[in-house]
Amino acid sequence: MLPESLTRLVHLFSRLPGVGEKTAQRLALFLATSDTDLSKKLGEELASLSDRLRPCELCGFIAEVGDAASPARCSICTDNKRDPHLLCVVARVPDLLAIERSGAMRGRYFVLGKLLSPLEGIGPDDLPLVTLKRRIDEEKIQEIVVATPPSVDGEATALLLARELKDHGVRVTRIASGVPHGGDLEFADQITLGRAIQGRKQIGS
Amino acid sequence: MLPESLTRLVHLFSRLPGVGEKTAQRLALFLATSDTDLSKKLGEELASLSDRLRPCELCGFIAEVGDAASPARCSICTDNKRDPHLLCVVARVPDLLAIERSGAMRGRYFVLGKLLSPLEGIGPDDLPLVTLKRRIDEEKIQEIVVATPPSVDGEATALLLARELKDHGVRVTRIASGVPHGGDLEFADQITLGRAIQGRKQIGS
Repeated sequence: MLPESLTRLVHLFSRLPGVGEKTAQRLALFLATSDTDLSKKLGEELASLSDRLRPCELCGFIAEVGDAASPARCSICTDNKRDPHLLCVVARVPDLLAIERSGAMRGRYFVLGKLLSPLEGIGPDDLPLVTLKRRIDEEKIQEIVVATPPSVDGEATALLLARELKDHGVRVTRIASGVPHGGDLEFADQITLGRAIQGRKQIGS
Repeated sequence: MLPESLTRLVHLFSRLPGVGEKTAQRLALFLATSDTDLSKKLGEELASLSDRLRPCELCGFIAEVGDAASPARCSICTDNKRDPHLLCVVARVPDLLAIERSGAMRGRYFVLGKLLSPLEGIGPDDLPLVTLKRRIDEEKIQEIVVATPPSVDGEATALLLARELKDHGVRVTRIASGVPHGGDLEFADQITLGRAIQGRKQIGS
Protein backbone atom coordinates (compact mmCIF):
# COMPACT_ATOMS: atom_id res chain seq x y z
CA MET A 1 0.00 0.00 0.00
CA LEU A 2 2.96 2.32 0.58
CA PRO A 3 4.59 3.76 -2.56
CA GLU A 4 7.41 1.57 -3.84
CA SER A 5 10.20 4.07 -3.16
CA LEU A 6 9.03 4.39 0.42
CA THR A 7 8.94 0.61 0.85
CA ARG A 8 12.51 0.44 -0.43
CA LEU A 9 13.51 3.12 2.08
CA VAL A 10 11.83 1.26 4.95
CA HIS A 11 13.69 -1.89 3.94
CA LEU A 12 17.05 -0.07 3.87
CA PHE A 13 16.46 1.62 7.22
CA SER A 14 15.61 -1.70 8.84
CA ARG A 15 19.10 -2.97 7.95
CA LEU A 16 20.58 -0.46 10.41
CA PRO A 17 21.55 -1.79 13.86
CA GLY A 18 18.79 -1.46 16.44
CA VAL A 19 16.24 -0.34 13.85
CA GLY A 20 13.28 -2.69 13.51
CA GLU A 21 10.49 -2.69 10.95
CA LYS A 22 8.35 -0.24 12.94
CA THR A 23 11.12 2.26 13.61
CA ALA A 24 12.19 2.05 9.97
CA GLN A 25 8.66 2.89 8.86
CA ARG A 26 8.43 5.76 11.34
CA LEU A 27 11.71 7.24 10.10
CA ALA A 28 10.76 6.83 6.44
CA LEU A 29 7.33 8.40 6.95
CA PHE A 30 8.84 11.31 8.85
CA LEU A 31 11.33 12.00 6.09
CA ALA A 32 8.68 11.60 3.38
CA THR A 33 6.03 13.78 4.96
CA SER A 34 7.55 16.16 7.50
CA ASP A 35 11.04 17.12 6.53
CA THR A 36 11.97 16.81 2.87
CA ASP A 37 14.91 19.18 3.33
CA LEU A 38 16.44 16.88 5.96
CA SER A 39 15.85 13.94 3.62
CA LYS A 40 17.82 15.63 0.81
CA LYS A 41 20.73 16.65 3.05
CA LEU A 42 20.91 13.26 4.74
CA GLY A 43 20.80 11.59 1.33
CA GLU A 44 23.67 13.62 -0.04
CA GLU A 45 25.84 13.04 3.03
CA LEU A 46 25.20 9.30 2.97
CA ALA A 47 25.75 8.90 -0.76
CA SER A 48 29.17 10.52 -0.60
CA LEU A 49 30.17 9.08 2.77
CA SER A 50 32.18 6.12 1.53
CA ASP A 51 34.13 8.33 -0.89
CA ARG A 52 35.17 10.65 1.89
CA LEU A 53 35.94 8.23 4.70
CA ARG A 54 38.48 5.42 4.91
CA PRO A 55 39.98 3.50 7.81
CA CYS A 56 43.14 5.20 9.06
CA GLU A 57 46.12 3.29 7.64
CA LEU A 58 47.88 3.37 10.98
CA CYS A 59 45.22 2.65 13.57
CA GLY A 60 41.95 1.64 11.89
CA PHE A 61 39.97 4.61 13.20
CA ILE A 62 38.00 6.62 10.65
CA ALA A 63 39.92 9.12 8.55
CA GLU A 64 38.59 11.78 6.18
CA VAL A 65 40.41 11.66 2.83
CA GLY A 66 40.77 14.52 0.35
CA ASP A 67 40.93 12.23 -2.67
CA ALA A 68 41.53 8.57 -3.48
CA ALA A 69 45.31 9.05 -3.78
CA SER A 70 45.96 10.79 -0.47
CA PRO A 71 46.92 8.63 2.53
CA ALA A 72 44.23 7.99 5.12
CA ARG A 73 45.43 9.32 8.47
CA CYS A 74 42.97 10.01 11.27
CA SER A 75 42.90 13.07 13.53
CA ILE A 76 44.38 11.09 16.44
CA CYS A 77 47.37 9.65 14.54
CA THR A 78 48.21 13.12 13.20
CA ASP A 79 47.85 14.78 16.62
CA ASN A 80 51.38 15.67 17.71
CA LYS A 81 50.37 16.37 21.29
CA ARG A 82 49.77 12.66 21.93
CA ASP A 83 52.28 10.48 23.76
CA PRO A 84 54.02 8.71 20.86
CA HIS A 85 55.09 5.71 22.94
CA LEU A 86 51.70 4.78 24.39
CA LEU A 87 49.27 2.70 22.35
CA CYS A 88 45.76 1.61 23.38
CA VAL A 89 44.40 -1.52 21.68
CA VAL A 90 40.61 -1.62 21.28
CA ALA A 91 38.24 -4.05 19.59
CA ARG A 92 36.03 -1.58 17.72
CA VAL A 93 35.77 2.11 16.79
CA PRO A 94 32.93 2.83 19.28
CA ASP A 95 35.19 1.58 22.09
CA LEU A 96 37.88 4.02 20.96
CA LEU A 97 35.36 6.86 21.06
CA ALA A 98 34.21 5.86 24.55
CA ILE A 99 37.79 5.91 25.83
CA GLU A 100 38.43 9.28 24.15
CA ARG A 101 35.38 10.69 25.90
CA SER A 102 36.88 9.64 29.25
CA GLY A 103 39.87 11.87 28.48
CA ALA A 104 42.15 9.39 30.26
CA MET A 105 44.19 8.14 27.29
CA ARG A 106 47.09 10.39 26.31
CA GLY A 107 48.45 8.03 23.68
CA ARG A 108 47.23 6.79 20.33
CA TYR A 109 45.10 3.77 19.39
CA PHE A 110 45.06 0.53 17.45
CA VAL A 111 41.69 -0.91 16.39
CA LEU A 112 41.74 -4.71 16.11
CA GLY A 113 38.40 -4.82 14.28
CA LYS A 114 37.56 -8.20 15.86
CA LEU A 115 38.24 -10.34 18.89
CA LEU A 116 39.54 -13.87 19.22
CA SER A 117 36.42 -16.05 19.11
CA PRO A 118 36.64 -19.85 18.78
CA LEU A 119 32.83 -19.98 18.56
CA GLU A 120 32.77 -17.70 15.52
CA GLY A 121 35.88 -19.32 14.08
CA ILE A 122 38.09 -16.25 14.59
CA GLY A 123 41.63 -17.36 15.42
CA PRO A 124 44.93 -15.51 16.03
CA ASP A 125 45.63 -15.37 12.29
CA ASP A 126 42.47 -13.33 11.74
CA LEU A 127 43.72 -10.51 13.98
CA PRO A 128 46.01 -7.78 12.58
CA LEU A 129 48.92 -8.85 14.78
CA VAL A 130 51.58 -8.33 12.09
CA THR A 131 50.49 -4.70 11.58
CA LEU A 132 50.40 -4.11 15.33
CA LYS A 133 53.89 -5.57 15.85
CA ARG A 134 55.29 -3.52 12.97
CA ARG A 135 53.83 -0.37 14.47
CA ILE A 136 55.26 -1.21 17.92
CA ASP A 137 58.73 -1.70 16.46
CA GLU A 138 58.69 1.29 14.10
CA GLU A 139 57.29 3.77 16.59
CA LYS A 140 59.23 2.41 19.57
CA ILE A 141 56.04 1.93 21.58
CA GLN A 142 56.77 1.43 25.28
CA GLU A 143 53.35 0.49 26.63
CA ILE A 144 50.37 -1.27 25.12
CA VAL A 145 47.12 -0.71 27.06
CA VAL A 146 44.80 -3.57 26.14
CA ALA A 147 41.26 -2.14 26.31
CA THR A 148 39.35 -5.06 24.83
CA PRO A 149 36.02 -5.63 26.62
CA PRO A 150 35.96 -7.66 29.88
CA SER A 151 34.18 -10.55 28.14
CA VAL A 152 35.40 -14.10 27.42
CA ASP A 153 36.54 -13.11 23.91
CA GLY A 154 38.00 -9.83 25.16
CA GLU A 155 40.03 -11.54 27.88
CA ALA A 156 41.23 -14.25 25.50
CA THR A 157 42.39 -11.56 23.07
CA ALA A 158 44.17 -9.70 25.88
CA LEU A 159 46.04 -12.87 26.86
CA LEU A 160 46.98 -13.55 23.24
CA LEU A 161 48.35 -10.01 22.88
CA ALA A 162 50.37 -10.33 26.09
CA ARG A 163 51.93 -13.56 24.78
CA GLU A 164 52.50 -12.35 21.23
CA LEU A 165 54.08 -9.03 22.24
CA LYS A 166 56.40 -10.49 24.91
CA ASP A 167 59.47 -10.27 22.69
CA HIS A 168 58.85 -6.75 21.42
CA GLY A 169 60.24 -4.94 24.46
CA VAL A 170 56.87 -3.47 25.27
CA ARG A 171 54.98 -3.36 28.56
CA VAL A 172 51.49 -4.84 28.07
CA THR A 173 48.85 -3.59 30.53
CA ARG A 174 45.15 -4.34 30.87
CA ILE A 175 42.45 -1.83 31.81
CA ALA A 176 41.04 -2.40 35.31
CA SER A 177 37.85 -4.38 35.79
CA GLY A 178 35.71 -3.79 38.87
CA VAL A 179 32.59 -2.20 40.29
CA PRO A 180 31.56 0.69 38.00
CA HIS A 181 31.48 4.25 39.33
CA GLY A 182 28.16 4.93 41.05
CA GLY A 183 27.36 1.21 40.96
CA ASP A 184 25.72 -0.54 43.88
CA LEU A 185 27.67 -3.42 45.42
CA GLU A 186 24.38 -5.13 46.25
CA PHE A 187 23.51 -5.44 42.55
CA ALA A 188 26.97 -6.13 41.15
CA ASP A 189 27.38 -9.63 39.69
CA GLN A 190 29.75 -12.16 41.26
CA ILE A 191 32.43 -11.96 38.60
CA THR A 192 32.58 -8.16 38.73
CA LEU A 193 32.81 -8.22 42.52
CA GLY A 194 35.43 -10.97 42.40
CA ARG A 195 37.52 -8.89 40.00
CA ALA A 196 37.06 -5.77 42.10
CA ILE A 197 38.48 -7.61 45.11
CA GLN A 198 41.32 -9.28 43.20
CA GLY A 199 42.25 -5.92 41.69
CA ARG A 200 42.22 -4.06 45.00
CA LYS A 201 44.80 -1.32 45.57
CA GLN A 202 46.35 0.13 48.67
CA ILE A 203 45.01 3.52 49.65
CA GLY A 204 46.36 6.01 52.12
CA SER A 205 50.01 5.78 53.06
CA MET B 1 37.78 14.05 16.98
CA LEU B 2 35.39 12.46 14.48
CA PRO B 3 35.89 13.48 10.82
CA GLU B 4 33.81 16.49 9.86
CA SER B 5 31.57 14.66 7.39
CA LEU B 6 30.75 12.09 10.05
CA THR B 7 29.92 14.81 12.58
CA ARG B 8 27.55 16.38 10.04
CA LEU B 9 25.90 12.99 9.53
CA VAL B 10 25.49 12.46 13.30
CA HIS B 11 23.88 15.89 13.53
CA LEU B 12 21.44 15.12 10.69
CA PHE B 13 20.51 11.71 12.12
CA SER B 14 19.79 13.24 15.52
CA ARG B 15 17.09 15.40 13.91
CA LEU B 16 15.05 12.25 13.22
CA PRO B 17 12.22 11.48 15.65
CA GLY B 18 13.24 9.20 18.50
CA VAL B 19 16.93 9.36 17.55
CA GLY B 20 19.16 10.87 20.23
CA GLU B 21 22.82 11.83 20.06
CA LYS B 22 24.03 8.35 20.99
CA THR B 23 21.81 6.49 18.51
CA ALA B 24 22.75 8.98 15.80
CA GLN B 25 26.43 8.30 16.42
CA ARG B 26 25.87 4.53 16.42
CA LEU B 27 24.04 4.71 13.08
CA ALA B 28 26.65 7.00 11.51
CA LEU B 29 29.54 4.82 12.68
CA PHE B 30 27.82 1.69 11.40
CA LEU B 31 27.29 3.23 7.98
CA ALA B 32 30.82 4.63 7.88
CA THR B 33 32.62 1.48 8.95
CA SER B 34 30.50 -1.60 8.36
CA ASP B 35 28.25 -1.12 5.40
CA THR B 36 29.28 1.43 2.82
CA ASP B 37 27.02 -0.16 0.20
CA LEU B 38 23.98 0.41 2.43
CA SER B 39 25.12 3.99 2.98
CA LYS B 40 25.23 4.66 -0.79
CA LYS B 41 21.83 3.09 -1.47
CA LEU B 42 20.19 4.81 1.48
CA GLY B 43 21.72 8.10 0.38
CA GLU B 44 20.40 7.82 -3.15
CA GLU B 45 16.89 6.88 -2.00
CA LEU B 46 16.77 9.75 0.48
CA ALA B 47 18.14 12.35 -1.91
CA SER B 48 15.49 11.60 -4.52
CA LEU B 49 12.65 10.94 -2.07
CA SER B 50 11.04 14.36 -2.16
CA ASP B 51 11.07 14.40 -5.98
CA ARG B 52 9.20 11.11 -6.11
CA LEU B 53 6.64 11.50 -3.36
CA ARG B 54 3.85 14.03 -2.95
CA PRO B 55 0.73 14.09 -0.76
CA CYS B 56 -2.23 12.54 -2.61
CA GLU B 57 -4.39 15.39 -3.94
CA LEU B 58 -7.56 13.67 -2.81
CA CYS B 59 -6.78 12.24 0.61
CA GLY B 60 -3.39 13.49 1.84
CA PHE B 61 -1.79 10.02 1.97
CA ILE B 62 1.57 9.62 0.22
CA ALA B 63 1.51 9.21 -3.55
CA GLU B 64 4.36 8.29 -5.88
CA VAL B 65 4.53 10.66 -8.85
CA GLY B 66 6.03 9.93 -12.27
CA ASP B 67 6.97 13.55 -12.93
CA ALA B 68 6.15 17.02 -11.62
CA ALA B 69 3.23 17.47 -14.04
CA SER B 70 1.33 14.25 -13.31
CA PRO B 71 -1.41 14.36 -10.68
CA ALA B 72 -0.58 12.87 -7.27
CA ARG B 73 -3.03 10.06 -6.56
CA CYS B 74 -2.25 7.43 -3.94
CA SER B 75 -2.72 3.67 -4.26
CA ILE B 76 -5.83 3.76 -2.07
CA CYS B 77 -7.66 6.52 -3.96
CA THR B 78 -6.98 4.73 -7.27
CA ASP B 79 -8.09 1.34 -5.89
CA ASN B 80 -11.42 0.59 -7.57
CA LYS B 81 -12.25 -2.25 -5.22
CA ARG B 82 -12.82 0.18 -2.35
CA ASP B 83 -16.30 1.21 -1.22
CA PRO B 84 -16.63 4.66 -2.91
CA HIS B 85 -19.22 5.94 -0.41
CA LEU B 86 -17.29 5.24 2.80
CA LEU B 87 -14.61 7.67 3.99
CA CYS B 88 -12.43 7.33 7.07
CA VAL B 89 -11.04 10.57 8.54
CA VAL B 90 -7.68 10.26 10.33
CA ALA B 91 -5.31 12.75 11.90
CA ARG B 92 -2.01 11.53 10.44
CA VAL B 93 -0.59 9.16 7.85
CA PRO B 94 0.70 6.62 10.45
CA ASP B 95 -2.89 6.33 11.77
CA LEU B 96 -4.10 5.53 8.25
CA LEU B 97 -1.45 2.81 7.96
CA ALA B 98 -2.44 1.34 11.33
CA ILE B 99 -6.10 1.14 10.24
CA GLU B 100 -5.11 -0.40 6.89
CA ARG B 101 -3.15 -3.07 8.75
CA SER B 102 -6.30 -3.98 10.67
CA GLY B 103 -7.97 -4.75 7.35
CA ALA B 104 -11.31 -3.49 8.72
CA MET B 105 -11.76 -0.39 6.55
CA ARG B 106 -13.27 -1.09 3.12
CA GLY B 107 -13.55 2.56 2.13
CA ARG B 108 -11.07 5.32 1.40
CA TYR B 109 -9.40 7.89 3.67
CA PHE B 110 -9.03 11.57 4.36
CA VAL B 111 -5.96 12.77 6.28
CA LEU B 112 -6.61 15.94 8.30
CA GLY B 113 -2.92 16.53 8.94
CA LYS B 114 -3.69 18.10 12.32
CA LEU B 115 -6.23 18.12 15.13
CA LEU B 116 -8.19 20.93 16.71
CA SER B 117 -5.97 22.19 19.54
CA PRO B 118 -6.73 25.39 21.42
CA LEU B 119 -3.47 24.98 23.35
CA GLU B 120 -1.42 24.98 20.13
CA GLY B 121 -3.61 27.64 18.56
CA ILE B 122 -5.12 25.30 15.94
CA GLY B 123 -8.73 26.29 15.27
CA PRO B 124 -11.43 25.02 12.88
CA ASP B 125 -10.10 27.24 10.07
CA ASP B 126 -6.76 25.45 10.18
CA LEU B 127 -8.37 22.10 9.31
CA PRO B 128 -9.03 21.17 5.64
CA LEU B 129 -12.82 21.19 6.14
CA VAL B 130 -13.58 22.83 2.77
CA THR B 131 -11.69 20.10 0.91
CA LEU B 132 -13.39 17.39 2.97
CA LYS B 133 -16.86 18.83 2.33
CA ARG B 134 -16.18 19.15 -1.40
CA ARG B 135 -15.07 15.54 -1.51
CA ILE B 136 -18.17 14.39 0.38
CA ASP B 137 -20.45 16.24 -2.04
CA GLU B 138 -18.61 15.28 -5.24
CA GLU B 139 -18.20 11.60 -4.40
CA LYS B 140 -21.62 11.25 -2.75
CA ILE B 141 -20.05 9.88 0.45
CA GLN B 142 -22.65 8.22 2.68
CA GLU B 143 -20.66 7.56 5.84
CA ILE B 144 -17.74 9.35 7.48
CA VAL B 145 -15.89 7.21 10.04
CA VAL B 146 -14.05 9.61 12.34
CA ALA B 147 -10.88 7.79 13.44
CA THR B 148 -9.10 10.63 15.21
CA PRO B 149 -7.33 9.46 18.39
CA PRO B 150 -9.34 9.10 21.64
CA SER B 151 -7.54 12.12 23.16
CA VAL B 152 -8.91 15.55 24.13
CA ASP B 153 -7.90 17.05 20.77
CA GLY B 154 -9.10 13.98 18.87
CA GLU B 155 -12.52 14.04 20.54
CA ALA B 156 -12.87 17.79 20.00
CA THR B 157 -12.07 17.32 16.30
CA ALA B 158 -14.60 14.49 16.06
CA LEU B 159 -17.32 16.71 17.56
CA LEU B 160 -16.40 19.55 15.20
CA LEU B 161 -16.66 17.21 12.20
CA ALA B 162 -20.06 15.90 13.36
CA ARG B 163 -21.33 19.49 13.60
CA GLU B 164 -19.77 20.73 10.38
CA LEU B 165 -20.94 17.80 8.26
CA LYS B 166 -24.52 17.75 9.58
CA ASP B 167 -25.93 19.44 6.47
CA HIS B 168 -24.08 17.30 3.93
CA GLY B 169 -26.44 14.32 4.08
CA VAL B 170 -23.73 12.09 5.48
CA ARG B 171 -23.79 9.74 8.45
CA VAL B 172 -20.90 10.60 10.82
CA THR B 173 -19.68 7.71 13.00
CA ARG B 174 -16.88 7.47 15.55
CA ILE B 175 -14.59 4.47 16.10
CA ALA B 176 -15.30 2.61 19.34
CA SER B 177 -13.26 3.34 22.44
CA GLY B 178 -12.91 0.70 25.16
CA VAL B 179 -10.67 -1.93 26.71
CA PRO B 180 -8.05 -3.03 24.14
CA HIS B 181 -7.93 -6.63 22.94
CA GLY B 182 -5.86 -8.73 25.34
CA GLY B 183 -5.92 -5.90 27.86
CA ASP B 184 -6.36 -6.52 31.56
CA LEU B 185 -9.38 -4.85 33.21
CA GLU B 186 -7.39 -4.53 36.42
CA PHE B 187 -4.85 -2.26 34.75
CA ALA B 188 -7.19 -0.28 32.47
CA ASP B 189 -7.50 3.39 33.37
CA GLN B 190 -10.79 4.86 34.61
CA ILE B 191 -11.66 6.74 31.43
CA THR B 192 -11.08 3.69 29.22
CA LEU B 193 -13.21 1.51 31.51
CA GLY B 194 -15.90 4.19 31.69
CA ARG B 195 -16.02 4.34 27.90
CA ALA B 196 -16.06 0.55 27.63
CA ILE B 197 -19.13 0.45 29.85
CA GLN B 198 -20.89 3.37 28.18
CA GLY B 199 -20.22 1.78 24.79
CA ARG B 200 -21.48 -1.68 25.79
CA LYS B 201 -23.39 -3.74 23.24
CA GLN B 202 -25.94 -6.49 23.53
CA ILE B 203 -24.59 -9.96 22.87
CA GLY B 204 -26.48 -13.19 22.27
CA SER B 205 -30.07 -12.95 21.06
